[in-house]
Amino acid sequence: MHNARPLPNYLVQRFHGWRATTFADNKAWYRRLSESGQHPRAMVISCCDSRVHVTSIFGADEGEFFIHRNIANLVPPYRPDGQQHGTSAAVEYAVTALKVAHIVVLGHSNCGGVKGCHDMCSGAAPQLEETSSFVGRWMDILRPGYERVKDLPEDQRITALEKEAVLVSIGNLMSFPFVREAVEQEVLTLHALWTHIGDGSLEQYMPGQGFIQV
Amino acid sequence: MHNARPLPNYLVQRFHGWRATTFADNKAWYRRLSESGQHPRAMVISCCDSRVHVTSIFGADEGEFFIHRNIANLVPPYRPDGQQHGTSAAVEYAVTALKVAHIVVLGHSNCGGVKGCHDMCSGAAPQLEETSSFVGRWMDILRPGYERVKDLPEDQRITALEKEAVLVSIGNLMSFPFVREAVEQEVLTLHALWTHIGDGSLEQYMPGQGFIQV
Amino acid sequence: MHNARPLPNYLVQRFHGWRATTFADNKAWYRRLSESGQHPRAMVISCCDSRVHVTSIFGADEGEFFIHRNIANLVPPYRPDGQQHGTSAAVEYAVTALKVAHIVVLGHSNCGGVKGCHDMCSGAAPQLEETSSFVGRWMDILRPGYERVKDLPEDQRITALEKEAVLVSIGNLMSFPFVREAVEQEVLTLHALWTHIGDGSLEQYMPGQGFIQV
Amino acid sequence: MHNARPLPNYLVQRFHGWRATTFADNKAWYRRLSESGQHPRAMVISCCDSRVHVTSIFGADEGEFFIHRNIANLVPPYRPDGQQHGTSAAVEYAVTALKVAHIVVLGHSNCGGVKGCHDMCSGAAPQLEETSSFVGRWMDILRPGYERVKDLPEDQRITALEKEAVLVSIGNLMSFPFVREAVEQEVLTLHALWTHIGDGSLEQYMPGQGFIQV
Repeated sequence: MHNARPLPNYLVQRFHGWRATTFADNKAWYRRLSESGQHPRAMVISCCDSRVHVTSIFGADEGEFFIHRNIANLVPPYRPDGQQHGTSAAVEYAVTALKVAHIVVLGHSNCGGVKGCHDMCSGAAPQLEETSSFVGRWMDILRPGYERVKDLPEDQRITALEKEAVLVSIGNLMSFPFVREAVEQEVLTLHALWTHIGDGSLEQYMPGQGFIQV
Repeated sequence: MHNARPLPNYLVQRFHGWRATTFADNKAWYRRLSESGQHPRAMVISCCDSRVHVTSIFGADEGEFFIHRNIANLVPPYRPDGQQHGTSAAVEYAVTALKVAHIVVLGHSNCGGVKGCHDMCSGAAPQLEETSSFVGRWMDILRPGYERVKDLPEDQRITALEKEAVLVSIGNLMSFPFVREAVEQEVLTLHALWTHIGDGSLEQYMPGQGFIQV
Repeated sequence: MHNARPLPNYLVQRFHGWRATTFADNKAWYRRLSESGQHPRAMVISCCDSRVHVTSIFGADEGEFFIHRNIANLVPPYRPDGQQHGTSAAVEYAVTALKVAHIVVLGHSNCGGVKGCHDMCSGAAPQLEETSSFVGRWMDILRPGYERVKDLPEDQRITALEKEAVLVSIGNLMSFPFVREAVEQEVLTLHALWTHIGDGSLEQYMPGQGFIQV
Repeated sequence: MHNARPLPNYLVQRFHGWRATTFADNKAWYRRLSESGQHPRAMVISCCDSRVHVTSIFGADEGEFFIHRNIANLVPPYRPDGQQHGTSAAVEYAVTALKVAHIVVLGHSNCGGVKGCHDMCSGAAPQLEETSSFVGRWMDILRPGYERVKDLPEDQRITALEKEAVLVSIGNLMSFPFVREAVEQEVLTLHALWTHIGDGSLEQYMPGQGFIQV
């Protein structure tokens, strides 16, 4: 791979800092994790956004969460067509191989992907409609959510669509036979969360109540 | 979403602990991040595995890394066919919208996805060959890597394949026109890493040298 | 003690989270507990098993239960031979110094210690018969229980032995003069419980009826 | 067991409260724990004292800590004499069967057992010297600690002895061959803590520094 370059020095330095401190203090745990395999209790699906680190919010250490991160924390509908579906593969592995007890979908404020979806669906970002736009095609998953929020006042629409991204994903998760089966057998629960980056609040969807503060 | 359930209590408790400490101590930074948007310097592509938290290894705080995590840290080849490609969407957003300066692909030891690919390609896991296997189809991306390692002694093959997962991804990244262009204009560098969970070591691919300790 | 190491960071973080929330909210109670001493109403003897937290099952707050936890929730027979008997010391302190009103012995499903006892007594785990096996010698306490269940069908034997662990302990408790005396004076009652980890059920031994659902 | 009595009603009521709430919300997790077994990361050795619940301090949920609780959080020296040693059995099971990565010994303020040891060793509690005193014989484990603190000013002596209880236990843990071996192989670390019930502070022993605030 002639395109790979040496790691920037600031990351080399930080790595050695981690190794001399956190790793050194937890060597026993890392070895156990390596030898005994992972047994994470939950899968978390969250956004790639650099401002949302679920391990921080929930104080999760190595070994606790199986984490998939993609643009806008979306899960596409079940579609076993032999194509590559990275999110579906992650869900399949978590539920059928690791047998996690919870899948947590975590949305957030200021989501660039959701904003893009809003602009695309409202006609303000025609370039996202192009076949070649990966972000546009990925955000197609959220179109049903847009339909439900498009008539809201403008200042509420984006936040509502961010929450729809979570709910659409929960809905799509239930379209996977192995997810539905595990939920029905009560060995798996699904959780819908949304966090506000700026004020550090967290809301969860409660059936019959909508999103309420945790 | 009648399927969403209340968050397990231990996570509620941890969230409130985080909010009363880390968040309270860094409120100014979280507000800035919320108001000024994210400006991450690097995109990291790593595995969903619960034992590999890149934020820990590199001591990354909120705002630093745009992180995509999928099974076996794979990037598929460029294929603008109008279908949903979550990984490609994340790469596109990082490079064209956020203009990150680095893309780091981080592989790791004990990777369940890579192990599955090995078993599938060597005939030991026929169920992964089925059309309906999301994990199998996702791991198809790594088949060219398997071809390169299949004649190695058995005890070296899995590790070699884990490193191939990184190199295949770097190679595929270069098939994206906007990645290639940014690399050629020297506004983006690619980095190939592999970490050993148990001994906390980190190796990087150096052209002409292969993987060597950082 | 040159062998003590710094606390893993995830525990430091959780401690500070607890202190900033639960402790801060209950400071008055913790101070009272510190200044006025403990007056627990019950002693609970349960297993070390990480899946059985009696404080959770009974919603017990600080100050309520004096809790002894050992492998398989066993109480050895009264034997005042001047040797170290940690369980007997805990019972003595609870009954004679704290004057608890109840002693609850709580057994549970999937108990590794009971399983070991079964295997040892049935000849399947000869290593547990060795003098140097602390687990084996400890599980000797349950041998009389094994004799009572050994002829049951195999699929009932382990559960029956888990319940015997509770009953043997209740029986042994009565061999302590200070326990017997307190029971006879009706200032102390003994309670025999067994919980199923997976379905969250709780059974109690009712004289003449055996174990029945609470 | 004609001595077992029905559970006090307040506990029945609380159990049903737990079952209708915490258990109902976490059913999936309890089932997984039941089916897949426990994989606790740490063993905690703490006191029976009703005011010290380690699960609370560290926000530990079911499945996280293997917990042994005895009077004054003591570990006796390694003595494979074929007698019953409940604490040694718990340590053996945690280290050799569960392969925990950490053993945390947690001492605390206002410890009745330590106070008893102090009174016994200083001649103020001759009844604890009797052969038949289980508490006295158990607290013999701490006599070497008393020797180290006996010349301190009176107002510092008890606290110092509480901390000695932790250090003596850490020292005794190292006398177990399987503990020493795991520590030397760096798959196990030992941690010495002391908490003040009234002010909710936590101190850890740092080699070369003594006990310092976490």
